[in-house]
Amino acid sequence: MRHFVSDLTDLQNKLLEMGGLVESSVRASTRSLVERNESMARSVWDIEDRINQMDIEIDEFATRLLALQQPVARDLRFLTAAIKINSDLERMGDLAVNIAQRSLAHIERAQMNALIDIPHMSGVVESMVHKCLDAFVQRDAELAFTVLLSDDEVDDLKNAFYQELMAMIESGQATVPAAFDLIFVAHNLERVADHATNIAEDVLFLIKGVDVRHHHLA
Amino acid sequence: MRHFVSDLTDLQNKLLEMGGLVESSVRASTRSLVERNESMARSVWDIEDRINQMDIEIDEFATRLLALQQPVARDLRFLTAAIKINSDLERMGDLAVNIAQRSLAHIERAQMNALIDIPHMSGVVESMVHKCLDAFVQRDAELAFTVLLSDDEVDDLKNAFYQELMAMIESGQATVPAAFDLIFVAHNLERVADHATNIAEDVLFLIKGVDVRHHHLA
Repeated sequence: MRHFVSDLTDLQNKLLEMGGLVESSVRASTRSLVERNESMARSVWDIEDRINQMDIEIDEFATRLLALQQPVARDLRFLTAAIKINSDLERMGDLAVNIAQRSLAHIERAQMNALIDIPHMSGVVESMVHKCLDAFVQRDAELAFTVLLSDDEVDDLKNAFYQELMAMIESGQATVPAAFDLIFVAHNLERVADHATNIAEDVLFLIKGVDVRHHHLA
Repeated sequence: MRHFVSDLTDLQNKLLEMGGLVESSVRASTRSLVERNESMARSVWDIEDRINQMDIEIDEFATRLLALQQPVARDLRFLTAAIKINSDLERMGDLAVNIAQRSLAHIERAQMNALIDIPHMSGVVESMVHKCLDAFVQRDAELAFTVLLSDDEVDDLKNAFYQELMAMIESGQATVPAAFDLIFVAHNLERVADHATNIAEDVLFLIKGVDVRHHHLA
């Protein structure tokens, strides 16, 4: 049983490591756009390779623990949560690649001044990734709740950004293709935030046994 | 053991039923936009309630089977796949609600002629939902592969649609808010397609034991 406890700790550590890679890839993808840095954009593919390796490794490890340890109750829920969290992290890595791809296209276009909210939005999203995994490892329901609140903040930022871009297109300050690039990036950041929110909901369910997935917070 | 086999069949049937609800909600959300039908848009929330109930029910059922039957190998993989598939289906329901919300906003705006590809794109996506679940139930790898191919088709449709809308904005044929509505809808359909693709990848892994998640098809 001692062995199993240390296996669960290993599993948590692997998820934290993967989360760190996801944060790095999101940050590199959005910074590459803002700084118009092509090699930084390309680094996202290298990070994705490592994320994909970890995805396979974690999935196999968690499934093996299910088979060998045949856990019940709390440990069982922990392992099924780990499998879902792993899947969410892997998809976040794909979304960072989407952003990096778009960043490479965007670098080719004329510079515009509407980038201002992208780093802030990216920072909020990166911090959501960090917090949902910390909440998982520390069984911290309050921290998990803050992720749900940040998700609302990301939606607000995206909507404000969207309004700003529409105004810029209509006034001729931004070209349509450049504006669409930024909409695309904001959209993909929002999707990363959605995955972090899903993880936070799984964590709350794990801690409290209460399903918050279908209830909105006030 | 006979009991367990019939439990697994029940679980499959529940997932198929949930998939049917997801298809209905996607169809209602996009048709409501094209037909400018407000009550059809509102019906999506009713379907979502049922999807959410099924999500909780299926998750509990699969977890209970893991605990009580302590399956290994193939059955274990089947159950962890079912838990992930359930989670994907539930998120598709959320995306249909996003589309329905946007449809209600769009109905208020002046009519435009760029809707033409939405029903086709929606049809392809609905069929992906259907096929990935059929592939799961019938253990049909070929069918699962067709879902991966349809995902590429959806990306192409979305990109063509995107180009068309940009041209319409630049020529003054479409207003920016109306065009953004349609971009948003196409984006959410693409996200539904992504979830169907994730399911198809899980099915291929289940059948072949080969991880196709990180390999693109030619």
